[in-house]
Amino acid sequence: MTELRRPDDKKMVVASGRAHPELAEEVAKELGIDLLPMSAYDFANGEIYVRSGESVRGKDVFLLQSHPAPLNNWLVEQLIMIDSMKRASARRITVVSPFYPYARQDKKGRGREPISARLIADMYKTAGADRVISVDLHTAQIQGFFDGPVDHLVAIPLLADYIRGRVGSDNVTVVSPDTGRVRVAEQWADRLGGVPLAFVHKSRDLTVPNQAVSKTVVGDIKDRTCVLIDDMIDTGGTISGAVRVLKDAGAKDVIIAATHAVFSDPAAQRLSESGAREVVVTNTLPIPSSKRFNKLTVLSIAPLLARAIKEVFEDGSITSLFDGAN
Amino acid sequence: MTELRRPDDKKMVVASGRAHPELAEEVAKELGIDLLPMSAYDFANGEIYVRSGESVRGKDVFLLQSHPAPLNNWLVEQLIMIDSMKRASARRITVVSPFYPYARQDKKGRGREPISARLIADMYKTAGADRVISVDLHTAQIQGFFDGPVDHLVAIPLLADYIRGRVGSDNVTVVSPDTGRVRVAEQWADRLGGVPLAFVHKSRDLTVPNQAVSKTVVGDIKDRTCVLIDDMIDTGGTISGAVRVLKDAGAKDVIIAATHAVFSDPAAQRLSESGAREVVVTNTLPIPSSKRFNKLTVLSIAPLLARAIKEVFEDGSITSLFDGAN
Amino acid sequence: MTELRRPDDKKMVVASGRAHPELAEEVAKELGIDLLPMSAYDFANGEIYVRSGESVRGKDVFLLQSHPAPLNNWLVEQLIMIDSMKRASARRITVVSPFYPYARQDKKGRGREPISARLIADMYKTAGADRVISVDLHTAQIQGFFDGPVDHLVAIPLLADYIRGRVGSDNVTVVSPDTGRVRVAEQWADRLGGVPLAFVHKSRDLTVPNQAVSKTVVGDIKDRTCVLIDDMIDTGGTISGAVRVLKDAGAKDVIIAATHAVFSDPAAQRLSESGAREVVVTNTLPIPSSKRFNKLTVLSIAPLLARAIKEVFEDGSITSLFDGAN
Amino acid sequence: MTELRRPDDKKMVVASGRAHPELAEEVAKELGIDLLPMSAYDFANGEIYVRSGESVRGKDVFLLQSHPAPLNNWLVEQLIMIDSMKRASARRITVVSPFYPYARQDKKGRGREPISARLIADMYKTAGADRVISVDLHTAQIQGFFDGPVDHLVAIPLLADYIRGRVGSDNVTVVSPDTGRVRVAEQWADRLGGVPLAFVHKSRDLTVPNQAVSKTVVGDIKDRTCVLIDDMIDTGGTISGAVRVLKDAGAKDVIIAATHAVFSDPAAQRLSESGAREVVVTNTLPIPSSKRFNKLTVLSIAPLLARAIKEVFEDGSITSLFDGAN
Amino acid sequence: MTELRRPDDKKMVVASGRAHPELAEEVAKELGIDLLPMSAYDFANGEIYVRSGESVRGKDVFLLQSHPAPLNNWLVEQLIMIDSMKRASARRITVVSPFYPYARQDKKGRGREPISARLIADMYKTAGADRVISVDLHTAQIQGFFDGPVDHLVAIPLLADYIRGRVGSDNVTVVSPDTGRVRVAEQWADRLGGVPLAFVHKSRDLTVPNQAVSKTVVGDIKDRTCVLIDDMIDTGGTISGAVRVLKDAGAKDVIIAATHAVFSDPAAQRLSESGAREVVVTNTLPIPSSKRFNKLTVLSIAPLLARAIKEVFEDGSITSLFDGAN
Amino acid sequence: MTELRRPDDKKMVVASGRAHPELAEEVAKELGIDLLPMSAYDFANGEIYVRSGESVRGKDVFLLQSHPAPLNNWLVEQLIMIDSMKRASARRITVVSPFYPYARQDKKGRGREPISARLIADMYKTAGADRVISVDLHTAQIQGFFDGPVDHLVAIPLLADYIRGRVGSDNVTVVSPDTGRVRVAEQWADRLGGVPLAFVHKSRDLTVPNQAVSKTVVGDIKDRTCVLIDDMIDTGGTISGAVRVLKDAGAKDVIIAATHAVFSDPAAQRLSESGAREVVVTNTLPIPSSKRFNKLTVLSIAPLLARAIKEVFEDGSITSLFDGAN
Repeated sequence: MTELRRPDDKKMVVASGRAHPELAEEVAKELGIDLLPMSAYDFANGEIYVRSGESVRGKDVFLLQSHPAPLNNWLVEQLIMIDSMKRASARRITVVSPFYPYARQDKKGRGREPISARLIADMYKTAGADRVISVDLHTAQIQGFFDGPVDHLVAIPLLADYIRGRVGSDNVTVVSPDTGRVRVAEQWADRLGGVPLAFVHKSRDLTVPNQAVSKTVVGDIKDRTCVLIDDMIDTGGTISGAVRVLKDAGAKDVIIAATHAVFSDPAAQRLSESGAREVVVTNTLPIPSSKRFNKLTVLSIAPLLARAIKEVFEDGSITSLFDGAN
Repeated sequence: MTELRRPDDKKMVVASGRAHPELAEEVAKELGIDLLPMSAYDFANGEIYVRSGESVRGKDVFLLQSHPAPLNNWLVEQLIMIDSMKRASARRITVVSPFYPYARQDKKGRGREPISARLIADMYKTAGADRVISVDLHTAQIQGFFDGPVDHLVAIPLLADYIRGRVGSDNVTVVSPDTGRVRVAEQWADRLGGVPLAFVHKSRDLTVPNQAVSKTVVGDIKDRTCVLIDDMIDTGGTISGAVRVLKDAGAKDVIIAATHAVFSDPAAQRLSESGAREVVVTNTLPIPSSKRFNKLTVLSIAPLLARAIKEVFEDGSITSLFDGAN
Repeated sequence: MTELRRPDDKKMVVASGRAHPELAEEVAKELGIDLLPMSAYDFANGEIYVRSGESVRGKDVFLLQSHPAPLNNWLVEQLIMIDSMKRASARRITVVSPFYPYARQDKKGRGREPISARLIADMYKTAGADRVISVDLHTAQIQGFFDGPVDHLVAIPLLADYIRGRVGSDNVTVVSPDTGRVRVAEQWADRLGGVPLAFVHKSRDLTVPNQAVSKTVVGDIKDRTCVLIDDMIDTGGTISGAVRVLKDAGAKDVIIAATHAVFSDPAAQRLSESGAREVVVTNTLPIPSSKRFNKLTVLSIAPLLARAIKEVFEDGSITSLFDGAN
Repeated sequence: MTELRRPDDKKMVVASGRAHPELAEEVAKELGIDLLPMSAYDFANGEIYVRSGESVRGKDVFLLQSHPAPLNNWLVEQLIMIDSMKRASARRITVVSPFYPYARQDKKGRGREPISARLIADMYKTAGADRVISVDLHTAQIQGFFDGPVDHLVAIPLLADYIRGRVGSDNVTVVSPDTGRVRVAEQWADRLGGVPLAFVHKSRDLTVPNQAVSKTVVGDIKDRTCVLIDDMIDTGGTISGAVRVLKDAGAKDVIIAATHAVFSDPAAQRLSESGAREVVVTNTLPIPSSKRFNKLTVLSIAPLLARAIKEVFEDGSITSLFDGAN
Repeated sequence: MTELRRPDDKKMVVASGRAHPELAEEVAKELGIDLLPMSAYDFANGEIYVRSGESVRGKDVFLLQSHPAPLNNWLVEQLIMIDSMKRASARRITVVSPFYPYARQDKKGRGREPISARLIADMYKTAGADRVISVDLHTAQIQGFFDGPVDHLVAIPLLADYIRGRVGSDNVTVVSPDTGRVRVAEQWADRLGGVPLAFVHKSRDLTVPNQAVSKTVVGDIKDRTCVLIDDMIDTGGTISGAVRVLKDAGAKDVIIAATHAVFSDPAAQRLSESGAREVVVTNTLPIPSSKRFNKLTVLSIAPLLARAIKEVFEDGSITSLFDGAN
Repeated sequence: MTELRRPDDKKMVVASGRAHPELAEEVAKELGIDLLPMSAYDFANGEIYVRSGESVRGKDVFLLQSHPAPLNNWLVEQLIMIDSMKRASARRITVVSPFYPYARQDKKGRGREPISARLIADMYKTAGADRVISVDLHTAQIQGFFDGPVDHLVAIPLLADYIRGRVGSDNVTVVSPDTGRVRVAEQWADRLGGVPLAFVHKSRDLTVPNQAVSKTVVGDIKDRTCVLIDDMIDTGGTISGAVRVLKDAGAKDVIIAATHAVFSDPAAQRLSESGAREVVVTNTLPIPSSKRFNKLTVLSIAPLLARAIKEVFEDGSITSLFDGAN
């Protein structure tokens, strides 16, 4: 006899970086398991050390890391974790990055710019990742940056259903804060019941030097409840500026909705003082209590992540999680 | 003495596939050279044979292919040409694809879709291409699909300057035919002198099954000259539908402008009968006389391609070709 | 507990491109399953869209495509299907190409030629294929073009057994239509019972310019039944020319046998009028009724493909399918 | 129904090259299986032919090869075996090289040197190896040369426990034969109970040309039992020279311990006549009877290899085989 | 005429990240050029943006980045710079990392650890680096982690010549602070004129649990001037502990020499108070004035880097920069 | 000024392995240069060390190695030389292997065989080779195994012109010793002036077990001068057997011609006693005087190699070296 034979069970673990442990705990809880125990610490000069406390040999590893500031630190930690899992003989490594780092640098807007979002995809691949799960990519094309399967989860249903419960469909307009998000605003409008669309137009005259930029609203928002949407809110400048423009143009009310609460200073203050009635986000990024404010509503992305991880592990269908989207 | 030494001149050639020889000839003429002589023919079962009539050893090869129908044929011809150049010891191979094939399939709109635009980039790379030059990519993110330098040329200045000469800036609105092109429409609006923006909104109510889609114009176009823009016109259905919506909504006049004249049937007829005053395109794709009509204006992309090729060969700057764009 | 555990069943599906659905149906039937439902259509400019109607996550996908004219179209469709399966998280993708495209361009016959058969192998790999199954490769070396397992099935036993049933072994000579197939003819001769060999020699005198090529038969065929073999019949020029040479040289009878019925025009007419008693081929390529003629016998390759697919899926042995060959 | 489904058992086989069949037999015996039957022979010009006598489709293949002289021959045999297994559809290929070839060329000591140990790792990878198992690498950094999991087994516990049984811990000093092994000597010293360390220093004065090298012992060895350790003994020149230096410096006794018994001529004679009391090695390399001598003790590495292979196959933990080392 | 021809001058630029601009300026000055103008800034959430102010098309780019804390930030900046240069058509990109990041994590000391130093090499490669220049790698094997040329510069001659000028060769012992640096200490000893060697031994008894580690000096240092060497000083704990052990053991004097002054807190204080007569380092890392102290001597690495860059650009010989080393 | 600028001369060197120094010397002489000085020796256990005596930075390196027995040794030496050149910053590395190793294992003749010829191509690539030059590959498809340019030189013109000078064209038949070389024999026949073809047929009846193989000549050789050709002569068994068959069948005279004189024992004796009038070969492999015999003629391949190297270096045309072939 030349052969040893064993039944081949498949086994799954979830490991987490140090950027957003609460989210990882919540995901694990949804899955009914504990997180993989990890040692992770910084050397005095900032070099990071990681090591799993348990064997991952032959396991299907889901490696969750969020990317708040200091973003580069968490990114490198994630890459090192992938390397350690690969060398420890994980069967498959799925990177779970709810907020895809450097998603905004997804093209060369000018000559000699990097395309950092592609670089990130290549780094994941080179370190040893087999697949990627992410939520509401800045542009859907980023799926094509990774050479392998990408499960692109969308939080719009989660957010839109919540908002619909708050404002209904009547007298509502979905507003994009600039021309780059109108397509996504359209998806919102469809989901809220075929409501009207509008966007804020920053117009410049390229033929006249140093001309000031003027902002106007294109679309019908007068006396209407505006749902101002974006994929992420960083310093909040654009979005709170848009609230003002809408109010000035006669909007009755503004609700802000975004998936990724980057909330770099002074976002919390700006949003709080923007005049918006409510700001609805998810917890793809950690939101410390210092950045929470009265009108802020945070919906948890953990159930969606957990269901996606389960479907991936069990060879189910992610597509079926959404109404044909993705 | 262990060494032979020679001065190292660099040499450039331009080769062309069979899809659009007129454009290649025009580019070569701009550069003051002849095209590389190529044998290329089809075997009876459709397999393609190509072979350069001259040595390309050590040369900087620019390989121009356009991608009209039958697109897959021209794509495979291009890949085989790249392979032949690589194996014939070309020093560097630059793919020049003025109309990037499969650019519209640049993301998974639904689960289980391919990302064919990324596949094309990988095919180019695997066959042996070092770099890519293209014009007005469907989305700028496609630059990030290729693992190497991409020179993304823009035809908007060419088209916009022509249109400005025709209609000036007063009483003009730039219109996107759907929500996906509003960002590009904004670049047009800036270039035409900070004019207003509008778009056509196809609204659906996802919460009601089988509901009809209704189209409305968002933005101010009443009694104005509309410059209806797109990156490509395929069958012309969307764009001629948009002309009708604009006219119905009170537009004074509509001029259509697009970079890529795919012109699949019945595009010529639709455009001709659409009510648009003029249709302005470039010759990134061949436009046979059977598809030309009265109101059609074709601007040549050849000077732009020739200048880009020259800058690449001479280590100049493509960035400087544009006003900071790219 | 840090681990979820599941029993790991393996699952197999067969998907088919649009080039030869009958063959795919027949293979599926042999396997006792239905084909994976696929959406596949062409855009107006020839770009192809494909999407699986069911989840393929974690499945062992066998992707069958045949390559008749328009060959490049079916090739690109196949590559896009591979890409879509890879991105949809198939566990393993096996390309089943019964007729390997571009197999004849397997070397540089002259400087600056492509090696398209290697390019095809690289395209399959880059798109995401893990393995290849093909039948009677033009040259066996093509196995080495793919960086991974290739199961090279041979149809000679199928064809030879049929022919033996028709003509026995006595008074039979196997004939190669040119010098490149003599090795394969020898395999036929062995399988038909150690019968004699002959070939058609096209002789040229390279030392005299523009000298005409003369064709002679080398080997004993006088008053014998000739089994004229080839791997493929394209336009039928060579093979029907060989019938004539054999008849002129005194052959009693000629039977033609080939695996791949490319049958580009005017193959059907030529073969039908060639004077051959029978033409025996397989259905690795579709043969429309317009190309079928009286003396044509088509043997089905489907049982062989189905058995190979089953062995691959079940980790059986392909080698054992053949008498030590392959 | 579109799917065939089967339970997925995993199956393991062990194949061996021709360099050290005894070790392979011993490992297989420990695992309770027979070795995979292999045909392997040399063509007249030295080209090697290999072929498995059984199907390896879907199997977890462990491919054991040792690397005595003629080392390059066994290396190429191993690479060809990997290639044959990859093309025969093995599920996973683990190279088991107890003595890693070219481990000493692990850096550029001078400009223009190769880094052959990295080259070996790349050759394994390119041929198709998924993982590597080796014993006592010349430097632990070689683990990082392979792009994938490396299980680095250590024989020090095996050797040290044996030696401790012979000499105890009292009055013992561990000695490194040069400055490059002091770190490893420290691991020995810890394992032997925190005993003292010493090393032989070959000092040169770089500032004086052609100055002779002088050897001195650094550390306390006077009247003590010295355990002189190294990872490998090649011609035995360094190590037997070190015995002399230690004896001259007053050592009471010397025991030599090394993992890899390369034993190139005249190692056996030198060691036998060196004055060492005992020489302890393992059988990672074959030791023909002509190279065995009185004071030689050979410990078998087979149990360690077998346990490691079993853990890898069963997704156990290699780490747990050692006290935290590895 | 099918060819354009130009003389092919080669052109070199030096670009610098933001981690250590003084060093880059000094290198550029040695080369007689200015640094490439770069835009580089942080977004609010820590994402980094970089863009060259001049065209780098066809240029030989040397990209200098140092890696002090926050190290991961500077690492990611460097990777993004490489990506931007690759996409901007640089002819060749040489990473100049005087202090190689994560060099200490160059092997798996225990199971499930990453090999981050290899990961760094792969990241450089994937981002687009063609070559690497570094100084005094933690272990020379790291050269083998990069798949391409690595020019490994050594600062030992610079440091040793300085120290020789201070202390001569008489009565000097070179001391390694642990067993891992004895080989390097030997190189020092040779360069200082064949002086004696010693090292600090931290002995543990692995066979007794929880036993305290004791430190002893092995080698002759009594009444001698000790040159205590290391490749880097991080928090200074090990090295200042070694000073104490040496002093306690009767050393007359201690001079510390190291290439990389990481100087994480409280290194400056520890070194200053360690009792060492002088601490000699280079400026491969920036040393802010807050971390400078009385006995600190900083030698500049800039001339060595500049000479290496020049040799690389001009196809000279790096090997000749050193006495046969590297 | 941010730029250093230098004229870019290109420089070429030829380095040789130790397998066939005479050939390398001859090639260098043809080129008017000396060989690159190389240190190369074997360690006691067979590991090979190589190092160039001069800088190769930025040079176009041609690395000539022949592959006589012990073939694996010379192969590994060649791979290590490539690695050392790559790491020493050669600009381009061209492998010159006049006799391509393992060319006969170019396909899977049976299941589970390796495709060693492809493996060799991948090894060259992985080690760092950019291009390959070889002579008379066993099958031309091997060109497609290497992912890059292969210059396939043919010695047939050299051999055929010599033989034509000896025997003219009248009454000559070209004979292939088996069915696998008939295509090549045809090229010979054309070059010798359109002379007749024949081959030796080893017929077996696969349908009868253990049937003896019988050899017959197919084609007209009675009273004619036979030019018996092959690409290589290994032990000479097949070829001298063919001489006997030809003589028995009435051939007047036999001349043997082959490119590669492998001449494994007892080839020299067999050939010498075979009854052939003359044996003509080239020196792609070394032929020691012990293997030379009376009727042997050795033509030098060095001028062809030298011309090819020169054309490659100077970006000339290899194609033009041959009459349209390759």
